[in-house]
Amino acid sequence: MYRPKSVSTLIEELVKLPGIGQKTAERLAFYILKASKDEAERLAMAILDLKGMIRQCSICHNITDHDPCEICTNHRRDKSTLCVVEEPHDLYAIEKTGGYKGCYHVLMGVISPLEGIGPDDLTISGLMNRIERDSIKEVIIATNPNMEGDATAMYISKLIKPLQVKATRIARGLPMGGDLEYADEVTLMKSFEGRMEI
Amino acid sequence: MYRPKSVSTLIEELVKLPGIGQKTAERLAFYILKASKDEAERLAMAILDLKGMIRQCSICHNITDHDPCEICTNHRRDKSTLCVVEEPHDLYAIEKTGGYKGCYHVLMGVISPLEGIGPDDLTISGLMNRIERDSIKEVIIATNPNMEGDATAMYISKLIKPLQVKATRIARGLPMGGDLEYADEVTLMKSFEGRMEI
Repeated sequence: MYRPKSVSTLIEELVKLPGIGQKTAERLAFYILKASKDEAERLAMAILDLKGMIRQCSICHNITDHDPCEICTNHRRDKSTLCVVEEPHDLYAIEKTGGYKGCYHVLMGVISPLEGIGPDDLTISGLMNRIERDSIKEVIIATNPNMEGDATAMYISKLIKPLQVKATRIARGLPMGGDLEYADEVTLMKSFEGRMEI
Repeated sequence: MYRPKSVSTLIEELVKLPGIGQKTAERLAFYILKASKDEAERLAMAILDLKGMIRQCSICHNITDHDPCEICTNHRRDKSTLCVVEEPHDLYAIEKTGGYKGCYHVLMGVISPLEGIGPDDLTISGLMNRIERDSIKEVIIATNPNMEGDATAMYISKLIKPLQVKATRIARGLPMGGDLEYADEVTLMKSFEGRMEI
């Protein structure tokens, strides 16, 4: 099918993004085509800036514009509690709740033998160094509640145990607004195991 | 909520795109963050190239890398038939069918008094010049089958009538695989009006 090369190229690049199919890519490309030159340049520059300016925080491995990151340098955060997450976007999900005032450690992945990712590919050694150096009191392991996340949590908790530091795992159970009738068996079982006194 | 500025900026720019909400923009931004620098640069460059290289064909007003466009310079296309469409993406939709071998004229919009777009804002005068100059035999008006598209088709057909050139409008009717039971009244009526002998 005939189409100018620069349009086809942009559509090909857009299709590579997650959740963007051929039709959506075409719609986006035609939108950018009709948008002002200024607007298109702002979008392109935002993509380039992101790759140019973003680095990892040397303490917690969160992505940041300035090293160390704003959370690590914030004196009002509790430095004795670490929350371990897989990826920066997990950290943002927790920050959105506004309920956690400790610091973080981003693993930059999860142990996954199937994908060939072992403990040495993650920032676990950095985590252990922090726990020993900064006299951490509690490590909250907030990896995802799936097989890889659980295995990683188990691995880290075993490393932490000899250090006499409290290691906790975020609770599994029914989500708010959930329905017992439609809950899967594992979630329901976990919500029984994790029952708390009222 | 805390987030590096370059990430927020990209999310803000992505949210402006059609069909991209906050969640999708966040997912795209994090994907670009994890993608290779090379991949991100290719995407940014594709956006910039699109705005830098694309121009309008001076004959048919289709978007193109080279002026005149590939369709206007293709000697195997029937130069005596013009298909009038609203936007370049309408032209691509027709090209995709592979069934039309004539040339095009892109109006770059549609008459819409509500949005303050009149006939002079479109490429209608260029269309009339082409019809007179290039001894066109038929003008197929393929504006969208809605109020603005119909009004524009009516306007153009009235201009064409004195020139003794055949003006046709693409058929309205039930779509392939459609169902009489669920068709709206106007479509069903149009499909009766447009009935053909078999």
